[in-house]
Amino acid sequence: MLIKKIKENLQDLDGQEVVLQGWVRTNRKSKNLGFIELNDGSSFNGMQVVYFPEMDDYEEVKKITTGSAIEVTGKIVLTPESKQPAEIQASKIEILGMADHEYPLQKKRHSFEYLREIPHVRPRANTYYAMFRLRSVLAMAIHTFFQDRGYVYVHTPEITGNDAEGAGECFTVTTRTDQDWEKDFFAKHAQLTVSGQLHVEPFALTYRNVYTFGPTFRAENSNTTRHASEFWMIEPEMAFADLSDNMDVIEDMIKYCINYVLEHAPEEMEFFEKVIDKECINRIKHVAGSDFKRMTYTEAIEELKKAADQFENKDIFWGMDLQSEHERYICEKVVQGPVFLTDYPKDIKAFYMRENEDGKTVAACDLLVPYVGELVGGSQREERYDVLEQKMKDMGMELEPLQWYLDLRRFGGCKHSGFGLGFDRMLMYLSGVQNIRDVQPYPRTPRNLIF
Amino acid sequence: MLIKKIKENLQDLDGQEVVLQGWVRTNRKSKNLGFIELNDGSSFNGMQVVYFPEMDDYEEVKKITTGSAIEVTGKIVLTPESKQPAEIQASKIEILGMADHEYPLQKKRHSFEYLREIPHVRPRANTYYAMFRLRSVLAMAIHTFFQDRGYVYVHTPEITGNDAEGAGECFTVTTRTDQDWEKDFFAKHAQLTVSGQLHVEPFALTYRNVYTFGPTFRAENSNTTRHASEFWMIEPEMAFADLSDNMDVIEDMIKYCINYVLEHAPEEMEFFEKVIDKECINRIKHVAGSDFKRMTYTEAIEELKKAADQFENKDIFWGMDLQSEHERYICEKVVQGPVFLTDYPKDIKAFYMRENEDGKTVAACDLLVPYVGELVGGSQREERYDVLEQKMKDMGMELEPLQWYLDLRRFGGCKHSGFGLGFDRMLMYLSGVQNIRDVQPYPRTPRNLIF
Repeated sequence: MLIKKIKENLQDLDGQEVVLQGWVRTNRKSKNLGFIELNDGSSFNGMQVVYFPEMDDYEEVKKITTGSAIEVTGKIVLTPESKQPAEIQASKIEILGMADHEYPLQKKRHSFEYLREIPHVRPRANTYYAMFRLRSVLAMAIHTFFQDRGYVYVHTPEITGNDAEGAGECFTVTTRTDQDWEKDFFAKHAQLTVSGQLHVEPFALTYRNVYTFGPTFRAENSNTTRHASEFWMIEPEMAFADLSDNMDVIEDMIKYCINYVLEHAPEEMEFFEKVIDKECINRIKHVAGSDFKRMTYTEAIEELKKAADQFENKDIFWGMDLQSEHERYICEKVVQGPVFLTDYPKDIKAFYMRENEDGKTVAACDLLVPYVGELVGGSQREERYDVLEQKMKDMGMELEPLQWYLDLRRFGGCKHSGFGLGFDRMLMYLSGVQNIRDVQPYPRTPRNLIF
Repeated sequence: MLIKKIKENLQDLDGQEVVLQGWVRTNRKSKNLGFIELNDGSSFNGMQVVYFPEMDDYEEVKKITTGSAIEVTGKIVLTPESKQPAEIQASKIEILGMADHEYPLQKKRHSFEYLREIPHVRPRANTYYAMFRLRSVLAMAIHTFFQDRGYVYVHTPEITGNDAEGAGECFTVTTRTDQDWEKDFFAKHAQLTVSGQLHVEPFALTYRNVYTFGPTFRAENSNTTRHASEFWMIEPEMAFADLSDNMDVIEDMIKYCINYVLEHAPEEMEFFEKVIDKECINRIKHVAGSDFKRMTYTEAIEELKKAADQFENKDIFWGMDLQSEHERYICEKVVQGPVFLTDYPKDIKAFYMRENEDGKTVAACDLLVPYVGELVGGSQREERYDVLEQKMKDMGMELEPLQWYLDLRRFGGCKHSGFGLGFDRMLMYLSGVQNIRDVQPYPRTPRNLIF
């Protein structure tokens, strides 16, 4: 008999005998029959298994616990009057692995805090069960978007010898105990990467359009709901592209991802809408249907000044770093939709961003979206050797470790641009889940390393 | 005027004006005209640009150096008598970035050793230019294969607190200098992962079919052509699957990947066939068309004993670890095609592999293929709590750090299996490239960490 999966439209097999394998979510007994809600991992929704006293091992089956692995043989029966289109009437239920009395998930609702302590079991809890499939679907959306457009996927390194990127605190990678880097594994100080951007630029100057998608790390001691020490980033980089081209790609990518997950994870998104955030589907559909506006940082500061009283941080001035409340005000109140802020003061942005003609700003863009604020950050890169060298000197950076990066500017360099999307934050944005610890399989945060 | 890419069948635009952007491979001047071979990253093959003395800036264009970035405006002209279907006759050539006299790639052939020192430029050298697109195509093949079959992609962590996996030497991840792990960032000893398998098993026991695809690390001081300190692995894991099901998936995956790269990277594969390994396409086509045979380790030992004289290592006995020469003999001489060796002695395999009824062997499988030997290793996992616990004790492992892994066996555990494919070795196999340093964008090996 063919082993089937719940996803495979079993209602089309009305009256046929099939075998299902999966895990028990609930086992309810009434006097003359029992109901098992079976989930086999193939789809968000499970299937109802009905069993009867006439069955062999009826007494054993009645005792099957939540979490147990079973194999069900039975007949598909249509159930037009109930929520699910079909159920299975079991002729045989084999217990493959009984969950014992310490099984940590019970029918009651558990707190996220409790579930974070058991990452080996929580994927079976509804929110995580929906999230980790959404995560997989979104990853495929990213790859499909870029590969369909001819982008080359580049595995930039996790271990780097570049001390000088300056994008945050780094983890050291070592096999020694004495910090004698010359004698260490790589014969120099090695760290975990904070960004693949510098390493991917040479590939953009070869293949034109490229992207990274891999883990990155921050050793920052910030215990917030939005920071993790290990997270996945997507960093596309396009040669012959200026800031405007860059924003076009970002807009297309975000819209593509939204439509892709609505198409490929509809049950999961409905679950998030029902249980986590009533507005999540409306919000992303609105974004997918909107033209993303563009506004300069300077214009944004003018808007914020007019409304300064509304903010906790009321001291609005040109040159400041915007806080989340300011970003959200711009996209939620002023623009009422997604907006790119562009041309930020050079002093608050990274050394590699291209300086504008005004000498004060750089060709940067941050995409702000309602509800979360900043979702993507990008820029046109400084392609002028002399300007980049001077900038690095002005910032007190050592040139030698990044001489190779400078050299790209004299080895057939050209206009190029790119951006970074935090994959985990995108999942938070799509689902409405508020804590980054709940979108990652094994979140790593300060003083927290489970398994 | 529309900016076009070389990949876009420009021969269909006969007589039309287009703009191309890219990098100069060669610039040949004869008396009355010049030829630039332009490569724009969109396809392996470039396009010939012809320019004439009547053009503005003719004297400047003649001086354009190898590696420079240019923008060409010109007319598509069909060239039925030459190798390429069309060329572009330039009306204007703009120099976007001239490569200076230190540009490290010249027309002559450079050694791989030389090119490994300049990972920021070598993607533009033919072998690497072909390889890194093949790498991207193969990555997409993997994702497409598994996602089309309903597998959930899981990002297992790079930083792990499991000291006890025992799969090789590990890198320590730290922010301190004194090894006071309690005060370290994660409040315990943290390492880089050597495998996602243990972390992905809980997801197989939730979603049935899952896979990882991410970086893994080895701090082994082995300077061979097949070992890197950082490499990407694919680790699928299937619930309700035994060793035979496992081998079915491996066989399907390998064949799918071969067909995918032949379809999506034909020019790159032709280049490898022409320049690197004349047999590479024949070899993989043969494998894609073969039924993979299955042979027990015990049978293989019998075959090897008969031929012991042929080996450097002639001491053939049951219980030994097979060397590469033995593996290649089995698949190349005995089977003459791909073969799974199964049921290895338990003492030479990992603790989590399922013990067979004989008490001496485990349900492991290694896929051996002609030319490279082992390509994939997998096993059915020990799902019996008591057996696994005893095995760990017998091997002197601490139980506590892996109690969660043991607990999966009493929380609805079931038969499950999985395998690991080294992504970089698969690229070596497909292309015939002999050194792992030449399939990775920035290879990390002992005492070698460039950029």
